[in-house]
Amino acid sequence: MNPADTLTEIAVPQSQQWVRGNLLTLEELNASEINIILDTARALKEVSTRSIKKVPALRGKVVVNLFFEDSTRTRTSFKLAAERMSADIVDFSVSTSSVSKGETLRDTARNLVAMGVDAIVIRHRSSGAPNLLSQLVECSVINAGDGSHEHPTQGLLDLYTIRETFVPRGKALSDLHVAIVGDVIHSRVARSNIWALSKLGAKITLVGPSTLCPDSFSRLGVTVSSDFDAVLPTVDVVNMLRVQFERITSAAFPSVREYSRYFGLDERRLKLCKPDVLVLHPGPMNRGLEITSPVADGPASAILRQVSNGLAVRMAVLYLCIGVSSLRRS
Amino acid sequence: MNPADTLTEIAVPQSQQWVRGNLLTLEELNASEINIILDTARALKEVSTRSIKKVPALRGKVVVNLFFEDSTRTRTSFKLAAERMSADIVDFSVSTSSVSKGETLRDTARNLVAMGVDAIVIRHRSSGAPNLLSQLVECSVINAGDGSHEHPTQGLLDLYTIRETFVPRGKALSDLHVAIVGDVIHSRVARSNIWALSKLGAKITLVGPSTLCPDSFSRLGVTVSSDFDAVLPTVDVVNMLRVQFERITSAAFPSVREYSRYFGLDERRLKLCKPDVLVLHPGPMNRGLEITSPVADGPASAILRQVSNGLAVRMAVLYLCIGVSSLRRS
Amino acid sequence: MNPADTLTEIAVPQSQQWVRGNLLTLEELNASEINIILDTARALKEVSTRSIKKVPALRGKVVVNLFFEDSTRTRTSFKLAAERMSADIVDFSVSTSSVSKGETLRDTARNLVAMGVDAIVIRHRSSGAPNLLSQLVECSVINAGDGSHEHPTQGLLDLYTIRETFVPRGKALSDLHVAIVGDVIHSRVARSNIWALSKLGAKITLVGPSTLCPDSFSRLGVTVSSDFDAVLPTVDVVNMLRVQFERITSAAFPSVREYSRYFGLDERRLKLCKPDVLVLHPGPMNRGLEITSPVADGPASAILRQVSNGLAVRMAVLYLCIGVSSLRRS
Repeated sequence: MNPADTLTEIAVPQSQQWVRGNLLTLEELNASEINIILDTARALKEVSTRSIKKVPALRGKVVVNLFFEDSTRTRTSFKLAAERMSADIVDFSVSTSSVSKGETLRDTARNLVAMGVDAIVIRHRSSGAPNLLSQLVECSVINAGDGSHEHPTQGLLDLYTIRETFVPRGKALSDLHVAIVGDVIHSRVARSNIWALSKLGAKITLVGPSTLCPDSFSRLGVTVSSDFDAVLPTVDVVNMLRVQFERITSAAFPSVREYSRYFGLDERRLKLCKPDVLVLHPGPMNRGLEITSPVADGPASAILRQVSNGLAVRMAVLYLCIGVSSLRRS
Repeated sequence: MNPADTLTEIAVPQSQQWVRGNLLTLEELNASEINIILDTARALKEVSTRSIKKVPALRGKVVVNLFFEDSTRTRTSFKLAAERMSADIVDFSVSTSSVSKGETLRDTARNLVAMGVDAIVIRHRSSGAPNLLSQLVECSVINAGDGSHEHPTQGLLDLYTIRETFVPRGKALSDLHVAIVGDVIHSRVARSNIWALSKLGAKITLVGPSTLCPDSFSRLGVTVSSDFDAVLPTVDVVNMLRVQFERITSAAFPSVREYSRYFGLDERRLKLCKPDVLVLHPGPMNRGLEITSPVADGPASAILRQVSNGLAVRMAVLYLCIGVSSLRRS
Repeated sequence: MNPADTLTEIAVPQSQQWVRGNLLTLEELNASEINIILDTARALKEVSTRSIKKVPALRGKVVVNLFFEDSTRTRTSFKLAAERMSADIVDFSVSTSSVSKGETLRDTARNLVAMGVDAIVIRHRSSGAPNLLSQLVECSVINAGDGSHEHPTQGLLDLYTIRETFVPRGKALSDLHVAIVGDVIHSRVARSNIWALSKLGAKITLVGPSTLCPDSFSRLGVTVSSDFDAVLPTVDVVNMLRVQFERITSAAFPSVREYSRYFGLDERRLKLCKPDVLVLHPGPMNRGLEITSPVADGPASAILRQVSNGLAVRMAVLYLCIGVSSLRRS
């Protein structure tokens, strides 16, 4: 048998309505666009269950991982997503690159484009860097996390996991109440979740100490609370943010132990929730701090399913931005 | 011509008897299993002589190199082995990963599995880490060296090289006497060689200073000696272990020069051997220390052939553990 | 449709005259060989304009990037070039490799060859390292920059860009006058340009302070000048070398600002040139130092086109050295 025959093409009809070449924020997407990504991800997730986990959809396309902050996990997820679609993917190591010789982001990026790169997946400590980059280059730009601004593929994979869990139970996103818990003010994951969930009609409550989760967030149309126990019985989903030590143990909060006591999710708290509550965490977890192991590894947790869904969502984003959109443009 | 047609599939009938998903140690394999790996390696070695050195056997499979100790050589060998079988392989850099954010080995590994990884090739400073990992994840685990415990693919490639050399001369492994020389006590290479050689019936003598090669090894059914010159005339194979400076020049031995004088292999010592003696070294060599250049580059040496065979052995291990075994399980 | 069918093979008839397995210097090539590389690059450049930017020409071949000096840009260019031809390419990280355990270049390289590597792309701080390597191993060796000696693929891509610009205007290389400006004495880019341009009959003037651009270069058949303004009206091409701070601000020159004033290319100087002058720079640029942004980004500049052509030239070099030549040898 010809091995190429085993690479059955994928069929994602709804993807034909996608027109963007970039994924910069979830704030700028409308509900329909978010649903196209989620539907495409659902179609692509099937590829990962095949014996030969590979389709030729992006064969000959080139993706660059341009990470200015370390993140093996997200970088690996994008890498595997690209390879599953048969794209070539290059890690552009910033520390050993011309960037360290003083080259500007613009020159680095335009050089990559001149080498025929189709998409740049960028992570940067500065909010807005992906948006800036998209104005400098003609290739696709995918935001893999910028400062405390957005982490759109994380928001999408959280949404995917929620939808995948509740739709079979007869609940739409607009029927759900989601708590996002922790250091909301510094969290790009929280922001991307807030945008995506509100566009799809979910009710959102942010939970955390007022230093890390100020009332000012309510202008985004969400509820803000510092009483975790009071919120728990009303929610369908609890999304626990990662504690970032250097921020928590500053003036923002007296101690990690104190934080854990008020805003950690343990078995006692889980019992306050509805029986079919869904627990999310973007990883990597600080076990015993924002979440205990029995909860993280228990039946309510979808933490590993989030990782699998992340791959499907990233396959979808790459497919839509450099597969489908480039067909449209050419 | 369709380029895919050039990727002729391989035929390895004996591989059908293989049932393991992991390669953790040689201690746990029986002689028959060791022979299946060596026979499969022999069949796969032919691929490397083709003009197009690639077969589609593991197309769509994903392998991760998870190295907690640096080793470009072994990592590259596994990488090329995976690519030669058309698998995708990802280097998971531990230093820049969530591991450095305090994530546990278990969480890192389970995340990789959630991304659809088929095999994790692990090197770790702690003896037993691969075994622990294999209990935590459902994918294949391949031990690429753990502490001073085992380095099974090195043991297998040494065995392959010995078999390839002596079988055409009409000698079976059970007819051979092998000396393993040097810092045996700290050497995972030595341990894997001891297990594999004894299972196939070879006679083994360990040679080294009593501080690095104590008599207690004799309980493994091997002979222990500190008189290299006396052992040499009786052996068919001399496997020279790499000197690891930080260990040698501690209390274990007075000086590197002294070590070299008693346990280095030079031309004078080579003349004490049988004329068809085979010299092995796992590399990287300290030329002039445990082995001199005339010996390392001379006709008795199979050191570069070991490297080539290492690739074939690793192709075989990946093929058996994630190609054949996964077919069996599905 | 079978995806493999989309990988149309390339046709480069002139490549059949190529006989070398290595690209070590441009000094040793004759004009006809240089033209074969440029013609092959032109044929391969078309691949990068396809929707599926990939041909199977080097399928099953293995290339290693062995970089002893950091250079993400050149390394990425070789990586993408190899992948565009369907070769596998491995980054052999020197800092984490056996090289740091004291292994010799020879042993490292011979190990790679034993693993079945077809080409080693080497960058090294020592002039002559690629030449030495080519005597130690049987695989192809490609020089990606050695000390202040040569950077042949940079010379070739500069030449390609010049030819691509002027031939449609009815000018051959032998009709052109090229200025190479800056720290010539330390520049491998300058040396490779000098060799290639002189072999194809171009007139060359080197411009710089006498400490960095001494009169002794005139023995290579070139003109040497320290008066940039006087040279500009007579040239068709200005190739601006990168300022390397640590060298400029030593005894060689009083200050960076001073350097910029005498040897930087700004809009005032550009107006002294012929209207169709071509501006080159090997990158990464120090904007505002050896070149100002209006010039670098203006219509005379071919700086990004150089990067695109670099990919095509490296595809050609790999194709000729390990595709065509290996067919000839086998």
